[in-house]
Amino acid sequence: MNDIISICNSVLSRIKPTEAEKSRLATLAESIILRINAIAEQESISASAQLVGSSARGTWISGEHDLDIFIMFQPDVERKELEEKGLYIARKIAGESQSFEERYAEHPYIHAIFDGFEVDLVPAFKVERASEIKSAVDRTPFHNIYVSSMIKGLEDEVLVLKQFLKGIGVYGSELKTQGFSGYLVELLVINYGSFVKVLENACEWKSGISIDIEKHGTLVHKDPMIVVDPTDPARNVAAVLSLNNMCVFMDMACEFLKNPDEAYFSVKTVKPLDDKSFNDILKARGTSLLAIEFATPDVVEDVLFPQLYKVRESIHEMFERYDFHVYNKSVWAQKTAVVLFELESSKLPHVKRHTGPQVWAKEHAQAFKSKYTGSDTFSNVFIRDGRFMVEIPRKYDRAKKLVESEILNCALGKHIASSIKKEFHVLEDEEILNIKDNEFRKYLRNFFEK
Amino acid sequence: MNDIISICNSVLSRIKPTEAEKSRLATLAESIILRINAIAEQESISASAQLVGSSARGTWISGEHDLDIFIMFQPDVERKELEEKGLYIARKIAGESQSFEERYAEHPYIHAIFDGFEVDLVPAFKVERASEIKSAVDRTPFHNIYVSSMIKGLEDEVLVLKQFLKGIGVYGSELKTQGFSGYLVELLVINYGSFVKVLENACEWKSGISIDIEKHGTLVHKDPMIVVDPTDPARNVAAVLSLNNMCVFMDMACEFLKNPDEAYFSVKTVKPLDDKSFNDILKARGTSLLAIEFATPDVVEDVLFPQLYKVRESIHEMFERYDFHVYNKSVWAQKTAVVLFELESSKLPHVKRHTGPQVWAKEHAQAFKSKYTGSDTFSNVFIRDGRFMVEIPRKYDRAKKLVESEILNCALGKHIASSIKKEFHVLEDEEILNIKDNEFRKYLRNFFEK
Repeated sequence: MNDIISICNSVLSRIKPTEAEKSRLATLAESIILRINAIAEQESISASAQLVGSSARGTWISGEHDLDIFIMFQPDVERKELEEKGLYIARKIAGESQSFEERYAEHPYIHAIFDGFEVDLVPAFKVERASEIKSAVDRTPFHNIYVSSMIKGLEDEVLVLKQFLKGIGVYGSELKTQGFSGYLVELLVINYGSFVKVLENACEWKSGISIDIEKHGTLVHKDPMIVVDPTDPARNVAAVLSLNNMCVFMDMACEFLKNPDEAYFSVKTVKPLDDKSFNDILKARGTSLLAIEFATPDVVEDVLFPQLYKVRESIHEMFERYDFHVYNKSVWAQKTAVVLFELESSKLPHVKRHTGPQVWAKEHAQAFKSKYTGSDTFSNVFIRDGRFMVEIPRKYDRAKKLVESEILNCALGKHIASSIKKEFHVLEDEEILNIKDNEFRKYLRNFFEK
Repeated sequence: MNDIISICNSVLSRIKPTEAEKSRLATLAESIILRINAIAEQESISASAQLVGSSARGTWISGEHDLDIFIMFQPDVERKELEEKGLYIARKIAGESQSFEERYAEHPYIHAIFDGFEVDLVPAFKVERASEIKSAVDRTPFHNIYVSSMIKGLEDEVLVLKQFLKGIGVYGSELKTQGFSGYLVELLVINYGSFVKVLENACEWKSGISIDIEKHGTLVHKDPMIVVDPTDPARNVAAVLSLNNMCVFMDMACEFLKNPDEAYFSVKTVKPLDDKSFNDILKARGTSLLAIEFATPDVVEDVLFPQLYKVRESIHEMFERYDFHVYNKSVWAQKTAVVLFELESSKLPHVKRHTGPQVWAKEHAQAFKSKYTGSDTFSNVFIRDGRFMVEIPRKYDRAKKLVESEILNCALGKHIASSIKKEFHVLEDEEILNIKDNEFRKYLRNFFEK
């Protein structure tokens, strides 16, 4: 236990913002809020600014220079009006920043850089209760109120847990990561009381674990982990968390408690995979690798990754439908996007058994027999297990050809479909080495080594 | 319909025994029966002979020179005494034949050749009712009584149906064939009234069809076809009939009624497959063929084939357990026996994903992680779908090696196990051409063409 305390203290000394850093952030936040309120008054817009998120709760990690500033409108305002006037104010204040861009989640917001801080300026409705929200972001101010009232004295525990989750690679509720959100971390600490107690409990979790701090949950969720939102009884704060990431945390929690080590709090560095190692690994494994490469569509990651996962599943289903056996699958995206499959083999026999109707299904049976009798088959029509069958030439006996010919019949998602329609490449085995990108080569090493 | 009548007449003219042939058979049967009864009297054995089977019912096909002669004992005789005294008489009369041998079914009997006729001399109990039989053969005399009383005038219908079933390859209730027994054919004709009516009905059958002429069935059977024995309400006469053979008959019945043709009544001749055709076929199919060859054990086919089928299933299960994908399987036996498999591929990747316990299954999880951490694996231990996994070297990546190493761990049946323990060969692809036997080559053609 002493080990753990000294490790946590050492970690904290690295990640806890200094008083100077806190004061820089507070000063910047205050000045932006004042400017927003001033602009609103000038323009006779009934809106006011508010700092939310970890920076408002004292649970942000040093160097994480993110500010979430909400521009709050009354709930009776039309959605269109909120978007127009909210963006009007946001653009105006962002005009004073180093740089900014418009982004789109459920509705548009502005992402700007002030003084090296990343500031999100988000129009939202100021509803009475979290259950009455008109847009997902409207919940955030309620989270702010709840956490602020409960977290006093536990901020350091939150910081250490966040850093632990970052170190083991499961922090962040983006749809790419599907890990633990900052709010979820705060609720776990509030529920269990400390970093170590969260770990002790996590080590005993099972899939389906349910935490309901306010004991007011109203819905049954099927997610691997259910943490009922203290501000909204119908919502699962852990809805985005994948079973994999939950399990990784459980496993690492147990391991850390057994053998505490500061290394858990640092992201592992990965060496890019060189050509020779790639060829050696592939030869030793004896599998076939297939990469589908295309230009990454210009959308935010929360739009891109669900589409990439959908493409991965959809191509996987197509492989199985055409009798190719999938061992592993994965996606990667930077400038180009890659959907990667490891197959038992990229070749199948040319012959394929085609199963027809039951012998007693008169009309179907007759149609089947007429179709295949005397046509270009490997066998006569025969009977097996009460059904007519025939052995026919397989349409695709090479995985590469299958993907090249049929990918547009897969469910691809809007943006990826339009990118693939323009151009895509299917790379097989050593052809994959044409992708020289260092980040891709790191990803490849992880793909093999796990 | 005129077509069918003239076809049936033409078939009958080929297969119906002539008066001269009938009289030769009757004379031989009578003389053997008289000799048996005389021997029994001489030796003070209380037993009497009886002609049973198709030769007793006038439902035998010309040239089929089989006589079933039962030596009937009272049911209070001990089994041992029946076997000893029955065989004593049988051996004595067989001593006057051209040649004979002892065979074993449920109990021993003598198979002898008299005058070119194959005569089975079978000791049996003369029980009161078929439901009281002490051995399976005791039923036969009851079948004889029942059929004889019902079949008058329908004998030709039986002959034609038998020949049809022979022509399409599904006649015979041996465990090798799993087709229609002679008794089953007689009951179908009795039930439906004629050859054509049997075919018309068979064309409408479904799996699970049930026929109970005496409406006295007492058991629920799960067989594809149930024909309750008119002499034993608990027995399914069609128990041996396989779903495949039933379906082949249904299909051929429909086809024949649509396009009557005398060709249905002749066994198709098959050309042996030559080396070049074999290689061409294998190359075109793109599959791998594996033959396990061993000396055929010296047992009757009804003992041999169930063991061969068991070996086929047991090796099939082993292939699947080791991730090899089986396309087709089959057995063949003459002097040597062959279990033949067509595989999607005889090679697998060297890497294999090994699935471990659920992450929350504490002790198992710990053992799994200890076992595979730092050992000779392709990957680290990782988590997928809530379970620990690891990628390890596959024990057998060649199907041939798997069979050579593990066949003795398969369920082989007593006689085949002892033959394989002495010697066996696994032949792959063109190595199979080392089996030059013409019958095997015909079988190979059927294996591919169906």
